[in-house]
Amino acid sequence: MIFRQLFDLDSSTYTYLLGDEQSGEALLIDPVVDQFDAYVTLLADLKLKLTLAVDTHVHADHVTALGRLREVTGCKTMMGKESQVACASGWFSDGDTIGVGAIALQVLYTPGHTDDSYSFYLMDKLTDKGMLFSGDTLLIRGTGRTDFQNGDSAQQYHSLTEKLLTLPANTQVYPAHDYKGWTSSTIGEEQAHNPRLQVKDVAEYCELMANLKLPNPKMMDVAVPANRGCGR
Amino acid sequence: MIFRQLFDLDSSTYTYLLGDEQSGEALLIDPVVDQFDAYVTLLADLKLKLTLAVDTHVHADHVTALGRLREVTGCKTMMGKESQVACASGWFSDGDTIGVGAIALQVLYTPGHTDDSYSFYLMDKLTDKGMLFSGDTLLIRGTGRTDFQNGDSAQQYHSLTEKLLTLPANTQVYPAHDYKGWTSSTIGEEQAHNPRLQVKDVAEYCELMANLKLPNPKMMDVAVPANRGCGR
Repeated sequence: MIFRQLFDLDSSTYTYLLGDEQSGEALLIDPVVDQFDAYVTLLADLKLKLTLAVDTHVHADHVTALGRLREVTGCKTMMGKESQVACASGWFSDGDTIGVGAIALQVLYTPGHTDDSYSFYLMDKLTDKGMLFSGDTLLIRGTGRTDFQNGDSAQQYHSLTEKLLTLPANTQVYPAHDYKGWTSSTIGEEQAHNPRLQVKDVAEYCELMANLKLPNPKMMDVAVPANRGCGR
Repeated sequence: MIFRQLFDLDSSTYTYLLGDEQSGEALLIDPVVDQFDAYVTLLADLKLKLTLAVDTHVHADHVTALGRLREVTGCKTMMGKESQVACASGWFSDGDTIGVGAIALQVLYTPGHTDDSYSFYLMDKLTDKGMLFSGDTLLIRGTGRTDFQNGDSAQQYHSLTEKLLTLPANTQVYPAHDYKGWTSSTIGEEQAHNPRLQVKDVAEYCELMANLKLPNPKMMDVAVPANRGCGR
């Protein structure tokens, strides 16, 4: 498998490219419209055909490249069924498997940051290590805010503790963002050292999240409506 | 092996942490002094003891954390023998092997960006793939500039074509910088798509490099003297 982590410096977004060398097919997770030209160049360089692009949720901090990628490459675009994004070409829900070639991502519904937040889990048979694309649900030493887009701290606590933290400790965690230059973590490391996961119960988690007092994302008023239209 | 790529957003520098789970020892490649606290935190979280820190060369765009790391952690600090950095605790040269625990980096002298530029090659036996830490010698779709610190385009051409590009095509390339959010590449990909490597001979490479007309790095007047003193 070809694997590339790409960083959009303006929005601090990580985009993931997964390519299946056998079939020559690739998928992108959380592509950013400003990086469209870079994706097209990289896919051509790697001799990969993009056949699928997915978002972990409707983003509020950058505009998705899903619509443009579908128009130009003809790839399938998918989002969670809760996203109400009519322009997607397909919708996934908890327990589904999506992917390209031999790459099979297990779809985990992990609401809380938003009501349409999903994560994707992939087992690498060669190294016997899992890879988790955790969107804004689990960040490195953090979790996604829950104060807009039907966010819900209690739901997020359950998504974290009952779904993501039950994965093997050596699972590599690849989030949708990082703001301090860290590129990955593991489930075991987040379980032990993520300050938001050291709470004793859901009530304490909700209290912690209710007191973050964050400003709205700069691009929110532009990005959310744009992303409900696949960024077109 | 524990592997982490860390990004300093101010200088667009990649720092690499390699940890040997068996011995609990770790090494850092190209650490940045501004990220010192983050390294100490991450090492503690991973239960790793830093025993070695190295720079690929005397950097002109950020201040190294080598001196501070040695003072605080007691780790060994190493640079190339050409670096004339008296404060290092050891010096490597072409053909040496350096590392911690079971992690053995093959030292490749790759002058050209500067006269003290080195790269490090590591073979991952589990995946049968090599990892190349290419410093500023080979960047993703670029090469390090050669117009100061005894840089030499002809030397760099030979370092690239006779040393780095002779590594297996599937070798993963981890450079010291990237300015567009790309985190890694491969030797095969750079051979085929790096615009600076499509020249027909050393003369054409030297001409290309002589016409880049780049401004001096912002921090050069501060960073080079500071780094000759291990950043202290």
